[in-house]
Amino acid sequence: MRIEVICTGDEVLTGKIVNTNFSYITQKLEDCGLAVEWETTVGDDRDNLLLAFQLAGQRADAVIVNGGLGPTVDDLSQEIAAKAAGVELKLNEQWLATMGDYFKRRSRVMPPNNIKQAMLPAGAEVLDNPIGTACGFAVTIGKARFMFTPGVPRELRRMLEDQIIPRLLAKSGKQSAIYLKRFHSYGIGESHADTLLAGIESLAPEGSVKLGFRSHYPQLETKLTVRGADIEAIRRTLAPVEAEVRKRFGNFIVAENDSTLEGVVLAALKQKHATLAIVETFSSGQIAGRLAHLPGAEAILRRGVVARQNEDICAAVGLDRNALKDGISKEAAEMVARAAQSQTGATHALAVLVDVDEGADRVEFAGTTCLAIATANDFASRRSRIVGGRDWVRLGAAEMGLDCLRRYLQGLPVNERIDFEKVE
Amino acid sequence: MRIEVICTGDEVLTGKIVNTNFSYITQKLEDCGLAVEWETTVGDDRDNLLLAFQLAGQRADAVIVNGGLGPTVDDLSQEIAAKAAGVELKLNEQWLATMGDYFKRRSRVMPPNNIKQAMLPAGAEVLDNPIGTACGFAVTIGKARFMFTPGVPRELRRMLEDQIIPRLLAKSGKQSAIYLKRFHSYGIGESHADTLLAGIESLAPEGSVKLGFRSHYPQLETKLTVRGADIEAIRRTLAPVEAEVRKRFGNFIVAENDSTLEGVVLAALKQKHATLAIVETFSSGQIAGRLAHLPGAEAILRRGVVARQNEDICAAVGLDRNALKDGISKEAAEMVARAAQSQTGATHALAVLVDVDEGADRVEFAGTTCLAIATANDFASRRSRIVGGRDWVRLGAAEMGLDCLRRYLQGLPVNERIDFEKVE
Repeated sequence: MRIEVICTGDEVLTGKIVNTNFSYITQKLEDCGLAVEWETTVGDDRDNLLLAFQLAGQRADAVIVNGGLGPTVDDLSQEIAAKAAGVELKLNEQWLATMGDYFKRRSRVMPPNNIKQAMLPAGAEVLDNPIGTACGFAVTIGKARFMFTPGVPRELRRMLEDQIIPRLLAKSGKQSAIYLKRFHSYGIGESHADTLLAGIESLAPEGSVKLGFRSHYPQLETKLTVRGADIEAIRRTLAPVEAEVRKRFGNFIVAENDSTLEGVVLAALKQKHATLAIVETFSSGQIAGRLAHLPGAEAILRRGVVARQNEDICAAVGLDRNALKDGISKEAAEMVARAAQSQTGATHALAVLVDVDEGADRVEFAGTTCLAIATANDFASRRSRIVGGRDWVRLGAAEMGLDCLRRYLQGLPVNERIDFEKVE
Repeated sequence: MRIEVICTGDEVLTGKIVNTNFSYITQKLEDCGLAVEWETTVGDDRDNLLLAFQLAGQRADAVIVNGGLGPTVDDLSQEIAAKAAGVELKLNEQWLATMGDYFKRRSRVMPPNNIKQAMLPAGAEVLDNPIGTACGFAVTIGKARFMFTPGVPRELRRMLEDQIIPRLLAKSGKQSAIYLKRFHSYGIGESHADTLLAGIESLAPEGSVKLGFRSHYPQLETKLTVRGADIEAIRRTLAPVEAEVRKRFGNFIVAENDSTLEGVVLAALKQKHATLAIVETFSSGQIAGRLAHLPGAEAILRRGVVARQNEDICAAVGLDRNALKDGISKEAAEMVARAAQSQTGATHALAVLVDVDEGADRVEFAGTTCLAIATANDFASRRSRIVGGRDWVRLGAAEMGLDCLRRYLQGLPVNERIDFEKVE
């Protein structure tokens, strides 16, 4: 089954907004075992829209169109869909009533131009939008079934999951259930991960599990798309495969599915009734920034401190200003973490000190990170050199700091070698 | 002149990476007064690539193709370009020598599969790539001139500016010079800005200045695209228009062209030989995070502090733990800023305290920000209520904190009403 996507709107075509709706659609389909073969972007222009619909209708079996369902004059999707399908636009009384309710529930009067949103090509099938006024619909153009979706991301997402994907799976004959299992890891590069997991798909019946990766430095997302008759069958198929991923990735898995490294750290601290102090330098407040705003963090993060000079770090944690005059080291990080722990009264303190190279930013630009975790009567520390430019070093230092804290809280070694560090 | 763009590669088509190359290309062309009419994305697939080239060759006058110029087997652009143009692939000896030099300068031996990158369609015009091994080239397919560019963003950007845009301007007959003037503002919404700047284009000869906006909350970018015979003529055309933008936007302009709000703040502090302490709550270290890693910040940012509970804030700046027991206010923010200033010895201290609503995140979720700036013998403060969800409040508090610091350093009022706050 050939699937195409057409994205519409001047804002996307002129680059005023980056087309994240498309990457969302195609990823989501990929996760369900469906592949997009072709994407077209056109602006709010009658001729180009009509041509795009006609061409896709000649080539594809199913087409998802995104955008152009709004109430204003430059929203043209219904009009051009009707023209391409060779039918008239017709008022859909049911959607008009739905919109009326929508406004009434919000104590607002429906503006007259919203009526346009209930004008659908004659014979169109309605694709429900329970969270907005843009009416999704499906019509046949050429040999393809076209499904029209709103440009507002959260409305698109809801419609894609509830309305579009079930129809596509039915049309493709892949009516089995689909489940996406995700692992988030830190410290393993994509090609290394690919090697580590070689042959893993063969632990399940052929074609039932598909392995994929999505790398967003410093983390790697590993995805298992599992297909089965129902969720029970999927669970049985997945069990040996996910166990094997956990075994091969070991301590490098930082979180699974919708959870995040910072969420895992916060939950582990909460479970221990622990509190936290953070001291940062070149990571610039990014470690605190990933934790501090999360619900529940207000009771756990006692203090985050940022400074760039060693004397300022010392002053901030109550050490003698010259305590770091010999530069940074694992021992220096321990001293700072201990000082922050005792100064703030937090049960745990994390200190991440970074010594960055001199000179302009470049690919060879590196930084040495020395980090330590201290409690009232214990500590752990690590030293690592990361190469790859200022941003790379900064993101890497923040990630390593958070990940070592996770490892410490989970009783795992904080010193396992990662793929992104340079052996000294 | 009709311009189309074709983006190639499985990574883009499957959404593994978001297509920022396309938005870069189309924005850059827009900035030069050129418009993209149609975009197509296809994967590393011979049939789809050929069809995409043929269709664009029938419709367009110029086509920019991005990606597929690498050394591996899935890089197909040259092969399919030759096929679509009806010519053979031919080794380009000159590019082979250029690549040889490229590797020699890096003390590396050229891998044999790089030879593929010097195989170009016979008769192709080389588009130089001084920073990579992918050779750009131009060929004619159908009625369009096709220009092939590398997928590596920095190589694409360089080639677009140096090679492609001059050719497109020549082809379009728009051989005049182009200049893009940008203003970054905070506090004015896009539609308000549009109203404020009404008629501004008419201060210049007709068609010589084009106004555009790009909104990325909390900031708004306002762009003036100026066309003229040469840079001197452009300067004369632009002068009255940019003066008028500055007059109408007034104190809301935070930076111009390539500079940023945080860069402006840092430069203003540096010029005053000043140093800075920052105290944050719900903004979670984001204010420090925008400043601390910038070159030069190591000598200016003396300390950044984050905590979420009022007692922890007080403890961090050396106040009595109960000093904020009555909640936050402008006076409370002043007290915290003064304490941070005297505690750290920084010449300036910024305190941004946020009281966030209870309950789950939602569009109506709001937060009250009280912020203050203190020096040894002066202070300024502001209170503001921002509505729009947790992220909106957090980003808004960070932006307002930095912007008020800019205003204070520039001798401007810190209390001008902005479009994003709720009148209480």
